[in-house]
Amino acid sequence: MINNHNLNVRGAAISEDDVEKQETRDILFPHQLEDVAQIAVDIGGSLAKVVYFSRTPDSPGGRMNFVKFETQHINDCVDFIHKVLYTGYHGQIPVEKRVIKATGGGAHKYYELFKEKLGVTMQREDEMECLITGLNFLVRQIPYEVFTYDERRAESMQFESTPSELFPYLLVNIGSGVSILKVTSDETYERISGTSLGGGTLWGLLSLLTEAKDYDEMLELSKLGDNKNVDMLVGDIYGGDYPKIGLKGSAIASSFGKVFKTPPEERKSKFKQEDISRSLLYLVSNNIGQIAYLNAQAHGIQRIYFSGFFIRGHPITMNTLSYAINFWSKGKIMAMFLRHEGYLGAMGAFLRHVPQRGRIQSFTENFTRVDKISGSSLGAVGALDEFPTHLTVFPLLADVSRYKPDTTDLKDPKLQQYWIDLLDRNLGDLADMALQWRGNFADTRTRASSFEAMYREHLQALRREPNMYGALTIRSLLDLREQCLREMGFTDIFENVKKQENAAALEGLPKLLKRLDAMEDEGKKLDNLIDNVLAGNMYDWGSTSVQEMLKKGELDFDTAKETVGHPQQFSQLAQLKQRLVEGSPYRKAVIFVDNSGADIILGIIPFARYLLGKGTTVVLAANTSPSVNDITVHELRGILPVIAGFDPVIRSAWAEQRLLALGTGSASPCLDLTRLSDELTTECRDVDFVVVEGMGRAIHTNFYARFRVDSLKIGVFKNPQVAKQLGANMYDAIVLYEVATPGSPKKV
Amino acid sequence: MINNHNLNVRGAAISEDDVEKQETRDILFPHQLEDVAQIAVDIGGSLAKVVYFSRTPDSPGGRMNFVKFETQHINDCVDFIHKVLYTGYHGQIPVEKRVIKATGGGAHKYYELFKEKLGVTMQREDEMECLITGLNFLVRQIPYEVFTYDERRAESMQFESTPSELFPYLLVNIGSGVSILKVTSDETYERISGTSLGGGTLWGLLSLLTEAKDYDEMLELSKLGDNKNVDMLVGDIYGGDYPKIGLKGSAIASSFGKVFKTPPEERKSKFKQEDISRSLLYLVSNNIGQIAYLNAQAHGIQRIYFSGFFIRGHPITMNTLSYAINFWSKGKIMAMFLRHEGYLGAMGAFLRHVPQRGRIQSFTENFTRVDKISGSSLGAVGALDEFPTHLTVFPLLADVSRYKPDTTDLKDPKLQQYWIDLLDRNLGDLADMALQWRGNFADTRTRASSFEAMYREHLQALRREPNMYGALTIRSLLDLREQCLREMGFTDIFENVKKQENAAALEGLPKLLKRLDAMEDEGKKLDNLIDNVLAGNMYDWGSTSVQEMLKKGELDFDTAKETVGHPQQFSQLAQLKQRLVEGSPYRKAVIFVDNSGADIILGIIPFARYLLGKGTTVVLAANTSPSVNDITVHELRGILPVIAGFDPVIRSAWAEQRLLALGTGSASPCLDLTRLSDELTTECRDVDFVVVEGMGRAIHTNFYARFRVDSLKIGVFKNPQVAKQLGANMYDAIVLYEVATPGSPKKV
Repeated sequence: MINNHNLNVRGAAISEDDVEKQETRDILFPHQLEDVAQIAVDIGGSLAKVVYFSRTPDSPGGRMNFVKFETQHINDCVDFIHKVLYTGYHGQIPVEKRVIKATGGGAHKYYELFKEKLGVTMQREDEMECLITGLNFLVRQIPYEVFTYDERRAESMQFESTPSELFPYLLVNIGSGVSILKVTSDETYERISGTSLGGGTLWGLLSLLTEAKDYDEMLELSKLGDNKNVDMLVGDIYGGDYPKIGLKGSAIASSFGKVFKTPPEERKSKFKQEDISRSLLYLVSNNIGQIAYLNAQAHGIQRIYFSGFFIRGHPITMNTLSYAINFWSKGKIMAMFLRHEGYLGAMGAFLRHVPQRGRIQSFTENFTRVDKISGSSLGAVGALDEFPTHLTVFPLLADVSRYKPDTTDLKDPKLQQYWIDLLDRNLGDLADMALQWRGNFADTRTRASSFEAMYREHLQALRREPNMYGALTIRSLLDLREQCLREMGFTDIFENVKKQENAAALEGLPKLLKRLDAMEDEGKKLDNLIDNVLAGNMYDWGSTSVQEMLKKGELDFDTAKETVGHPQQFSQLAQLKQRLVEGSPYRKAVIFVDNSGADIILGIIPFARYLLGKGTTVVLAANTSPSVNDITVHELRGILPVIAGFDPVIRSAWAEQRLLALGTGSASPCLDLTRLSDELTTECRDVDFVVVEGMGRAIHTNFYARFRVDSLKIGVFKNPQVAKQLGANMYDAIVLYEVATPGSPKKV
Repeated sequence: MINNHNLNVRGAAISEDDVEKQETRDILFPHQLEDVAQIAVDIGGSLAKVVYFSRTPDSPGGRMNFVKFETQHINDCVDFIHKVLYTGYHGQIPVEKRVIKATGGGAHKYYELFKEKLGVTMQREDEMECLITGLNFLVRQIPYEVFTYDERRAESMQFESTPSELFPYLLVNIGSGVSILKVTSDETYERISGTSLGGGTLWGLLSLLTEAKDYDEMLELSKLGDNKNVDMLVGDIYGGDYPKIGLKGSAIASSFGKVFKTPPEERKSKFKQEDISRSLLYLVSNNIGQIAYLNAQAHGIQRIYFSGFFIRGHPITMNTLSYAINFWSKGKIMAMFLRHEGYLGAMGAFLRHVPQRGRIQSFTENFTRVDKISGSSLGAVGALDEFPTHLTVFPLLADVSRYKPDTTDLKDPKLQQYWIDLLDRNLGDLADMALQWRGNFADTRTRASSFEAMYREHLQALRREPNMYGALTIRSLLDLREQCLREMGFTDIFENVKKQENAAALEGLPKLLKRLDAMEDEGKKLDNLIDNVLAGNMYDWGSTSVQEMLKKGELDFDTAKETVGHPQQFSQLAQLKQRLVEGSPYRKAVIFVDNSGADIILGIIPFARYLLGKGTTVVLAANTSPSVNDITVHELRGILPVIAGFDPVIRSAWAEQRLLALGTGSASPCLDLTRLSDELTTECRDVDFVVVEGMGRAIHTNFYARFRVDSLKIGVFKNPQVAKQLGANMYDAIVLYEVATPGSPKKV
């Protein structure tokens, strides 16, 4: 395996210990019984990339892992795969019936070696086809996969949304050498060009010209260098610009052009390694950019993706490629980069295992086990955690192409610092909760402190490079914290809190329902229902401020009601009431719920019960897996029968399936409406009223979301910074009721 | 000045001694009185190229000289020009009123230096425009300027004829960096691309990676290397070909891709300088070829010229550029190279001196003073000797685009050896004649032995690289010998022989004319006239065999008649006679004459006199300057009045200008009908009968020439090899009378 200096490119490599611990019996692709695609390998001239699928007992889906090796140490790669295959394997399928997919030049060269040493069937897949399959998958499936880079921008790294029409595009794969593919559909492509001046050239020449021991050291050297000491610039020849042909004095006229002007005896001592590294990096990157552009021009293509381990998220490399494309295309084309730049081929080979009838599941990228980012790299590669269900887009979004889940990108460095600091401060309390969750077992303390250290390290890394894991948002910070907890085995640290709160709230519910049922004025009843939702939403362990109030015993359900403010600009309560009281009842409502306890039981359930009473079918959409104190669909399905036990409205609705509890597919305190479980989106097709509740789902995310049908966003600001940013105060409520104009969805 | 290892690129540099000896007062461009374009300089990032015009007392035209310097030693260049300007200068134009044209980046950078040190006006010219002007001039004016190169062919170097339509073309100028220009007319161009990976890159990197002291040493190293030891080939990755995408196992997948696979401590010792040089040369050349092709493709251009000192006639460089263009264009485009590859810019700047009204004279390339070709270079650059008159195309050629003066290229190595050996053997006799010419002056012996050594050295060089001075032909070998003689001051070594022969022949002419006039049968008279021409043509000092017969006293005019054979396949005598006797007389005939003495006086004059008698105007076209024993127009103009003194036919024709003697513009024993004096071609416009006489003009050259009007090729085979090649015997005659089919010229 690549040494630890190169950790950035290892992706979420599991350590060898992990392999031993893994239940390799579970290394099975769901939907498969045999010939499963556990492992795929892409053996290039310089690097061998491995993608393999694994399962851990505490995760419903599986995990796609990425590891790489130097091809010259191919036996390390073989040994690693051997371990994955044989250690602890007790499944139904004998190893000798396993299949490994292999691609890249080495798939031919090392075919016999792999076959013999591993004792499995090796199936070779065409390299170019794998690259394309891999790219198409990653671009379509992985959020924040694609980005542009330009150091002249305030935000150098900017992520690209997946285009509605992916084809045609140019794929410039930079390995040891460079291949340029023109891809016109999922099935059609042509290798139109290439160049032998690739990563191997840079690496090779710098091996001869510098003392650097590996490629990353060379890239580090290049950061310190100034190519002007080595390259002949236009200004060195012309004494300034050459405007007639559009060349600036600062343009490189001749790479290494200053060297031969130095007397031979001085040459080898005069030129600094740093400057040489910088110059050579410019040379190779510029050249690839130029050849890519010329091919795009010749074929009339507007989209150019760069991939391959040559890039490895290195700012100067990406900036040079971007600059070249921008320069030659006169600003018309932007170079696009991929976070999984090096794994396209291996990923594509992996996907070849899936039979045509099978469906690729959805993945979320998990950065927890990503190793330290090296100084050279901007982007990290996480493991891909498979969701148990396929994720699809919420069908009621007004304009999917313009939908962004996040209300704010944390582009402002001050905001970044505020949020990272906040989460850092909160970390100790969370670690304490983790410790208390299931009692103090042998390794609990170690794991809890590991969690704290792991997340803190990520926060540190994000301070340096905020977009390392994709665009930095409140959602991404919260999700990463959840992932770190799960990764250390803390899959549900709020379990006890939630149980306690749910029990207490359930106790109070009958009285509350009785009081509501007694209200004759429907308007007043609605006021009360909405107040309850807002008050309930304040009970949120995820919010530090609320925690403080709870600890001091200052907060109970009635105080909460009094604390919540109702600024006019965020309240369409009157319109909501008018519609619900006077209008025809909604056919079907979906409510994206938030916390357990008072929130769900004293806030949401009574409101849902009101809708059910009007004849509306109600779908309660809850997290599929635990996340802080959010109610899970599993927990909800435990609570509803209890309520049905004492309330006839809920009982009949639950029995008649007019009241449903469905999992969103998510395990996040936030909500991405483009990635919901199939089951939920199918059920939501005929919904005519969308309710999104809570700070995570209606303020951090979806605040600006627009729907094809009427919608209600409801929740409380529990963070002063977010409140301020949107023009509110702490504990102000939002009751945003929006009526859809049929046929002309509102634009954001 | 560049050291002597680089002599190939110095062109016909005059040595510093020469400069001192020159009559610099004569460094004047004809047609100019002031602001003359004596000197132009193109100062690039690596090299400064100088083109200057000089005159020597023994040449009617001037000479364009080419010299280069390393830009880092720019003071050497300034000193050289200073010497050219000031040494021995006594002309009308004060130095301070002189103008030097300057181009290239350094024209700006070193502007003040030149101005101050030389005390002249410096006029800067745009670099790109100069390149194009230079290329257009050289391609159009210099025979064998353009060639293609492919080492897979039996004849690697093949010369290209000038296309009827030059535009559009791509000019890829490889200096320190590379510029790519799209040229669409003499006036319009665009710099569409370029790359910083140029000559400076190769030179610079090899300076760091090898012990070679200069660029030529690096190129020599590269010849000994094998890039496979450094580069990663497709086969190294795939274990063989990758046919699906059309890559052979031998293709370079990654330049220098094998280096990083070697343990760091071994890298610097393991890789041989030779292999590194070869790999880097491939890298840079391949890359330039590819970028050139991609630009040609994007702009729909079919013709790509490569220029710049990067190439310097180096076989591997040219072959790699050719291979790249051929590979990427799938064989549709050939890379074209220029012998003056490095001097386009300087040449273009030079030509900027010529005012719009002026006309560029014609030049012949003189290789005599070319220095030894270095091991790296295939092509030599000669000085351009200016003809006193502008040269134009003979207007009666049937198809100029298909016309080739030479009957055979000496492509067969055996033929090459035969001719080189023959000329080598004959060289001693010629040197003896040179010694005897004007008596033994102080330096005659030195000059004669210098001539012998110089020509022998050229013959040796041509044995190694036959196409070094353009396509090797009998004509080029003979012309080079004439140039060597002239260069050593032997401008007319046959002067005495010619005088002697002319006097003897003139003595016999009255009797011959009387005998002819007495013949009543016109057919018989014609037989006799033709016999005389053929017999006269045998007296040719240029032919070794004839010399032998003369020496032995075996040959006189009557024996000659008996010796000449008349093979049927080369004789259309009957048709000629029929036409002349029975047909209407020709309006105007041009006779390209050959030797002095019996040939012109006893052979051609009586035949011309016969035509004059029929009412035909006769133009005698003779060499403008001396060449072996060929009659010159100057000598002819001395002889005709003598004949007019005793013959009334000649007297009246000469007086009435129905008999004319015009110079061809040439000083060659052969004849290139595309390069004739303006005066002659203008006079020939209404000619309806073309006669070409002698082995040099009707057999070595023009044997296959076709004309728009009736023509006669007449002469005797005096070389057994040529006779054999064309299916004849020694001393066989050709009397090829061809009647033109009006409107449908015969195709060769």
